[in-house]
Amino acid sequence: MTAASSDLTPLLNPRSIAVIGATNRPGRAGRIIFEQLRRAAVPLFPVNPGESDVLGAPAYPDVKALPEGIDLAVIAIGAEGAVKAAEACGRKSIPHLIVVAGGFRESGPEGEALEARLAALPRRFGSRVLGPNTLGIFLPHSRLDTLFVEHGDKALARGGGAAFISQSGSVGVEALGLASNTGFGMRAFVGLGNACDLDEIDFLHHFADDDGTTCIAFYMESMGDGRRFLAAARKASLRKPVVALKAGRSAAGASAVVSHTGRLAGSDRVVSGAFRQFGVQRVMDDEALCDAAKTLSMLRPPKGNRVAVVTPAGGYGVMAADYTTLSRESVGLRMARLSPETENRIRNISLPYASSRNPVDLTASANDRMVGETLDALLNDPGVDLILCIAFFAPPAITDAMIDEIARRAVATDKPVIVFTQYGPFTEDYLRRFHRLGVVGFPSIQRAVRAARFLVERAGIIRRLNLP
Amino acid sequence: MTAASSDLTPLLNPRSIAVIGATNRPGRAGRIIFEQLRRAAVPLFPVNPGESDVLGAPAYPDVKALPEGIDLAVIAIGAEGAVKAAEACGRKSIPHLIVVAGGFRESGPEGEALEARLAALPRRFGSRVLGPNTLGIFLPHSRLDTLFVEHGDKALARGGGAAFISQSGSVGVEALGLASNTGFGMRAFVGLGNACDLDEIDFLHHFADDDGTTCIAFYMESMGDGRRFLAAARKASLRKPVVALKAGRSAAGASAVVSHTGRLAGSDRVVSGAFRQFGVQRVMDDEALCDAAKTLSMLRPPKGNRVAVVTPAGGYGVMAADYTTLSRESVGLRMARLSPETENRIRNISLPYASSRNPVDLTASANDRMVGETLDALLNDPGVDLILCIAFFAPPAITDAMIDEIARRAVATDKPVIVFTQYGPFTEDYLRRFHRLGVVGFPSIQRAVRAARFLVERAGIIRRLNLP
Repeated sequence: MTAASSDLTPLLNPRSIAVIGATNRPGRAGRIIFEQLRRAAVPLFPVNPGESDVLGAPAYPDVKALPEGIDLAVIAIGAEGAVKAAEACGRKSIPHLIVVAGGFRESGPEGEALEARLAALPRRFGSRVLGPNTLGIFLPHSRLDTLFVEHGDKALARGGGAAFISQSGSVGVEALGLASNTGFGMRAFVGLGNACDLDEIDFLHHFADDDGTTCIAFYMESMGDGRRFLAAARKASLRKPVVALKAGRSAAGASAVVSHTGRLAGSDRVVSGAFRQFGVQRVMDDEALCDAAKTLSMLRPPKGNRVAVVTPAGGYGVMAADYTTLSRESVGLRMARLSPETENRIRNISLPYASSRNPVDLTASANDRMVGETLDALLNDPGVDLILCIAFFAPPAITDAMIDEIARRAVATDKPVIVFTQYGPFTEDYLRRFHRLGVVGFPSIQRAVRAARFLVERAGIIRRLNLP
Repeated sequence: MTAASSDLTPLLNPRSIAVIGATNRPGRAGRIIFEQLRRAAVPLFPVNPGESDVLGAPAYPDVKALPEGIDLAVIAIGAEGAVKAAEACGRKSIPHLIVVAGGFRESGPEGEALEARLAALPRRFGSRVLGPNTLGIFLPHSRLDTLFVEHGDKALARGGGAAFISQSGSVGVEALGLASNTGFGMRAFVGLGNACDLDEIDFLHHFADDDGTTCIAFYMESMGDGRRFLAAARKASLRKPVVALKAGRSAAGASAVVSHTGRLAGSDRVVSGAFRQFGVQRVMDDEALCDAAKTLSMLRPPKGNRVAVVTPAGGYGVMAADYTTLSRESVGLRMARLSPETENRIRNISLPYASSRNPVDLTASANDRMVGETLDALLNDPGVDLILCIAFFAPPAITDAMIDEIARRAVATDKPVIVFTQYGPFTEDYLRRFHRLGVVGFPSIQRAVRAARFLVERAGIIRRLNLP
């Protein structure tokens, strides 16, 4: 019997991986996972009694036959076999196991008994278990990827600061898809599955200490140990933003949680109050979770809540002002009152029909230079805390060079600059272009203003948590 | 002096068009508009004193030289020249003019005087004026298109039922982009510009009577004659859905409206109350406007507000239930309670781990057939009014054939079926595939549930307006 370690390094940065159930048979999870893991620069040890080699790597007949010192075993066989293999891995002192199969607690009493055997592994052998019923982990920077379902263009999730921890495999996969669509740098994706051992708290501790992680994002349907989670979240939130989608808010949703995970969702109002108190930012759906993770991992919180808007299209300036000032959200924003100097500067660089008041309307006669110089004026105005830049490419004098005009200013300032862009079928491509240059952008005005709110909310949390 | 006609047929279905300012010079509005209009099967008459022909068509030196009987003149020259040309068109009894140029009321006293001369044209000559400061019109089914700015992939807006009338050119152009991204059939786009003569009410009357129009959508910043608009909207709403984005809701937004259009935005609360009373559905931004237009132009209102959800991903079932039941919106939705017979049917076609209760969770083991047969069961349940179908393509046994499984049921029933799909970078492509088969789909759960709300709201309006 060994003491289970709380160090997740062998799991998230393994030096060797055994794949139980690795196979040459196309389409099987054991094949997909093995193929994917080959892209990580880590020695792989396939285990399969029916194969002499898997994709050229010599196969081991069983876990016992494996060499010593393996860091991680990914177990990609059915529930009963998986439990036996996991116990064999325990005997072999493999410190970390990922159990992919479903058919455990979520499926009834027999599955519960099987899961109890997995849950006993840390105590019996010192092995930590991720899962069962999990997609596992995906770390773009090391190309470590055990996700066996299609998850969009992974190449676009090229690494970044957001650690994404999900109690639902599907929500995680869709989040990866959203991430790749519009640019969203991910540090790590972790699917918790049934969380019989490793849970949200373990990963919260890990990513709070990980310098490469700039924001921690959760999809949760239930909280195993709410108090411990909140205490850990508060500690993490002192260092970096923590954002959570806690589903099962309604009675109908909570009852659906039970059949999805076999856990109780908890009283929703209590959850909201506790999140607020412990510095966790709450969101309502996967899109908001991804938007928050993108924004909070890339931009610093502003000094205040005064928003300046610049637009080549008056109508969008009006909508931006509406969303900024009229929301029923708890986080308030205000339209900045520009200084006379700022208004003068804008008048000097724009055309006579433009409006130099906030929202600054450069009209469809705007060109790249006017947009850039207006940003300069707004960045220099001490009455402006955040800037919402509406980037349209339809006006005749606007070119793709505007992306650079915006980006070089946005990355050189502490004032958050958030872009809203729409460009017909090219919208996602343009958002990715902004993202590649380090600019946070969204394809809807409502989402862009919401992103500003996430930042102002974060600023409030920092102030509150740092109070004596 | 002739009486101005209220018949908009010569404008929207012209048999001949003069283009004042048509030119061979690349990049100029007069060139772009002329090139685009050549795609409509209508004789064109370019007017330009400096050219002998425009793109091969013999040019006329001035308006006076034009033949008699022209239906529509598109005037694509600067403000002062445009007013003179418009007066010449009036003398020539051309019944409809589109004045593209800006530099009128929105630009100060001189512009105001120029606009007053345009506004006098109906009285003086019987000519009706669209604009000034407008992009004009775009009718996909006849390829009549005067929009001179890039507006995404127009080919995708292949025609449909939604008439889109906008006081802002940019908002209209972006809406066209949104339309083309995910599929959104447009009957007509009309940019009102400064609306010195033809306004929202004229087009409301026209499209209310037009059998090809199944929904009328407005972007408005101000209401010229609120009472007349509301009376016309009520009449139209008895026949088809009317939806409006009225921007300038906040004080900041309303003050921005003044500088954008030179008009007052009106008291916001009064507007909301009046809209409700007169059967106009109000939305908050351009995305919601497009979503409402798409939904309301393609689906009939349901009998009640009971929503059934089917999903291959439990987490999304939970979020759907949350959004359905917990919204602060004025339109209430409920999660349907499925009949024992329905639950039995679903149990018989799904796997043991699936949940046959609403939200129906087929799990990641779902296949195309299970999704189709679950839809059959839900469509047959009298306790279900609308169906939200979550279509993911990540589960291994789901193929593209699921699109057809869903589509052939969705188009054969009066119960609205709304799809939510996400598929990484392929999301928009899949939404278009659904759209081509007549299925209404959205890329976010929040937008899909909101679409259900638009339909239930419409059902309530029909009930209320038809009360004695």
